[in-house]
Amino acid sequence: MPEVPPTVDLRLDELHGALVDPALTSMNFLNEVAGRYPDAISLAAGRPYEEFFEVEAVHRYLDRFCRHLAEDLGHPPDQVRRTLLQYGRTKGIVHHLVAEHLAVEEKITVDPEAIVVTVGCQEAMYLVLRALRADPRDVLFAVAPTYVGLTGAARLVDLPVLPVASGPAGIDLDDLVTQIRRARAAGRRPRACYVMPDFANPSGASLDVPTRRELLAVAAAEEILLLEDNPYGLFQLAPGDRPPTLKALDGDRRVVYLGTFAKTALPGARVGYVVADQRVGAPDGTVGWFADELAKIKSMVTVNTSPIAQAVVGGRLLEYGGSLVRANEREIAAYRRNLRQALDGLAARFPPDDPVGRWISWTAPAGGFFVVVTLPVPADDALLERSARRHGVLWTPMHHFYDGGVPVRALRLSVSAVTPAQLEQGLDRLAALLRTELWRSRADRAVGPAAEETPESLPRLDRRVSGAER
Amino acid sequence: MPEVPPTVDLRLDELHGALVDPALTSMNFLNEVAGRYPDAISLAAGRPYEEFFEVEAVHRYLDRFCRHLAEDLGHPPDQVRRTLLQYGRTKGIVHHLVAEHLAVEEKITVDPEAIVVTVGCQEAMYLVLRALRADPRDVLFAVAPTYVGLTGAARLVDLPVLPVASGPAGIDLDDLVTQIRRARAAGRRPRACYVMPDFANPSGASLDVPTRRELLAVAAAEEILLLEDNPYGLFQLAPGDRPPTLKALDGDRRVVYLGTFAKTALPGARVGYVVADQRVGAPDGTVGWFADELAKIKSMVTVNTSPIAQAVVGGRLLEYGGSLVRANEREIAAYRRNLRQALDGLAARFPPDDPVGRWISWTAPAGGFFVVVTLPVPADDALLERSARRHGVLWTPMHHFYDGGVPVRALRLSVSAVTPAQLEQGLDRLAALLRTELWRSRADRAVGPAAEETPESLPRLDRRVSGAER
Repeated sequence: MPEVPPTVDLRLDELHGALVDPALTSMNFLNEVAGRYPDAISLAAGRPYEEFFEVEAVHRYLDRFCRHLAEDLGHPPDQVRRTLLQYGRTKGIVHHLVAEHLAVEEKITVDPEAIVVTVGCQEAMYLVLRALRADPRDVLFAVAPTYVGLTGAARLVDLPVLPVASGPAGIDLDDLVTQIRRARAAGRRPRACYVMPDFANPSGASLDVPTRRELLAVAAAEEILLLEDNPYGLFQLAPGDRPPTLKALDGDRRVVYLGTFAKTALPGARVGYVVADQRVGAPDGTVGWFADELAKIKSMVTVNTSPIAQAVVGGRLLEYGGSLVRANEREIAAYRRNLRQALDGLAARFPPDDPVGRWISWTAPAGGFFVVVTLPVPADDALLERSARRHGVLWTPMHHFYDGGVPVRALRLSVSAVTPAQLEQGLDRLAALLRTELWRSRADRAVGPAAEETPESLPRLDRRVSGAER
Repeated sequence: MPEVPPTVDLRLDELHGALVDPALTSMNFLNEVAGRYPDAISLAAGRPYEEFFEVEAVHRYLDRFCRHLAEDLGHPPDQVRRTLLQYGRTKGIVHHLVAEHLAVEEKITVDPEAIVVTVGCQEAMYLVLRALRADPRDVLFAVAPTYVGLTGAARLVDLPVLPVASGPAGIDLDDLVTQIRRARAAGRRPRACYVMPDFANPSGASLDVPTRRELLAVAAAEEILLLEDNPYGLFQLAPGDRPPTLKALDGDRRVVYLGTFAKTALPGARVGYVVADQRVGAPDGTVGWFADELAKIKSMVTVNTSPIAQAVVGGRLLEYGGSLVRANEREIAAYRRNLRQALDGLAARFPPDDPVGRWISWTAPAGGFFVVVTLPVPADDALLERSARRHGVLWTPMHHFYDGGVPVRALRLSVSAVTPAQLEQGLDRLAALLRTELWRSRADRAVGPAAEETPESLPRLDRRVSGAER
């Protein structure tokens, strides 16, 4: 809070209501805690691994993309300069390289004209939600717990987000159908369901292939879109084939695919994209891409995505022939190492026969950045505060990923951005916190699971726990 | 329109209403015409001059900014890499350099914490409008004709924009007061008035200093904010002191200042900013910057502005000690040359005693990119189409800058992005078009001014015409 006299020029309660919504304020709170404890080990932020960052690569990628324009596309020098430095195409300048990447790596075949390159995946989500929210009847569904950036974007366009149970499969399809029909019966208009099928943020859960196919069938039957967000798909724990994305299985354009290069290229480029190949019919009978409607909105939000930033991402895609798996070989190895270390480290620190360990369980994700730890006490903001102050370790209280302010007995660990030494120390500190706190809870006679306070999804997620029936 | 079968997945009339609003579709139409006639000379796009663009400068600026982080701010190498390449501060990483620039060049003293660095000025506008539009009563005022990016952003947040007459002073303050009070009497809540005090887009009009002071007084008396947009302030026609911005005169934080580096650094960086030093009071008694509320919204729209793109702009600011006048010496000379050439060229082609020239007048802006030419016939989209097809010259029909679809007998020439030879040829082609069309109109007996079809602001602007009483 700046040191200003108490004069007030504007009143918060006369600004847009989203500004006091937990979806927007929780991000601020978490950043603020992190800012106050800069020396704490952060198992909170879902950032990519930093060891291999190099500024020199930015220069190299820029040059690589300029060579591509000149040599592959035959642009004269003044056109290369204009492409990189002038205002440009609203839908982007690396759309053809994104399409090539999707073909090479995800078996998604898409016309480059159906792609909008955006300022990170966040803008992609925002544009889609803004387009879909036409009137107050509209509602969106999302598997709970939900990425807070989705909920926040929905708040800004006044679009309610109705939670769908995750269940053992990562999405409870019966619940989805029930929720859709209940909403319709109440006069609402279901537009889409948001889902992260691979190593979801925050749950870490993934959908198996039959579930993916069933979800597509439900979407078709219920006439809703699926918003597939896939930031972590490349980062599976065990080498081998990756399951197809929903978009790769999408035979009838049900899926709007949200992509980002923040985790696979550089967060600092802030480049993402949306594949929106749906056909939009206008009252005059003309038909165009949904991508073109999103571009109209984008032209009024950010005009276009920095072509310099796009060129950086484009250069990286070119350098690896569109394969982000190859581009991220070292990073993928680091994520596997960290995730294994985290899971082994939790098992070592909380054995099932331990007086504290018996109350603690955690997910065993098949990849991605996140492990969810379930406690017998609420992992609230006060606990995080004590964790940072007394124990020097940061994590994310899971209640931030649920609407409604119900206490949640779980926390999210992010293992992507730490070194092995930091991770080890972070787990030590977490163990010290939990031993202290559970002792305290026992003294308060409040220990033990209280199922009624835990969102439906978490106990089920716990079935994936590494320590079997714990 | 892509060649797709007529199957339809989504209906345009079930998407957000802004998508069929002229504010969003006109940009598309204008781009589409330009795309169909790539060989036409464009006096349409308000783009900066390209002659001095160099890719090498991007590399140099990036390195300059990294040196600044390391040497001036003492950041170790891993922190420099993290600042440039990782997720970062929502409000930006060049805020201190923006504040320095504003102090050096605009005599605006502002706490860097009250600045949000944005994805171009467009995002700055969008964030401010999103924050201010809290409920359906809220309305915004804007001097007509209005920059279409403002109107489009307002549509996306469902905020009505009520036009204020420009009048001989560039803003008719009596009309502003009348409009505000009328809106209040109708139960609406006036939030702000959007204004470009320097060489406005599209009118080219500027406010003199007494008008600026009076406008601030009106804003204070009527308790509204002023949204000052200043993309062209540096580009005055005659050398000498520039008038102070509204923000420089703003004693009580009435002004939200919208800035861009698209015209003064590189459009391809897509970096702008907003100065929002208003104090926002929360119901719990805490007080914070309006900038921090805008940052909360930004975190859900674009997360942060690409730090790589910010570094490019930061490097340029550092290279010139915060002075964009010095950084743009060559560009400013080119804009002066072009604007003079355009005004002289119009005078030479349309002398007042000429059978066609007597029906044509134009503004004499004191700087900026734009000249508005008033015709005796509507400058509609069909005329633009004929101009592109038959005469090979593009311009912007002024009706796109007014709400309501009334025919407007004026067009905007943008003289910023052409070479002298292109400008000369473009004016020749425009003259050929107008001679053909006015002859045609005469044959149709439709020639001659029809004041009732011309928005109030245009005839008054014509008092500034270079050819005196024409």
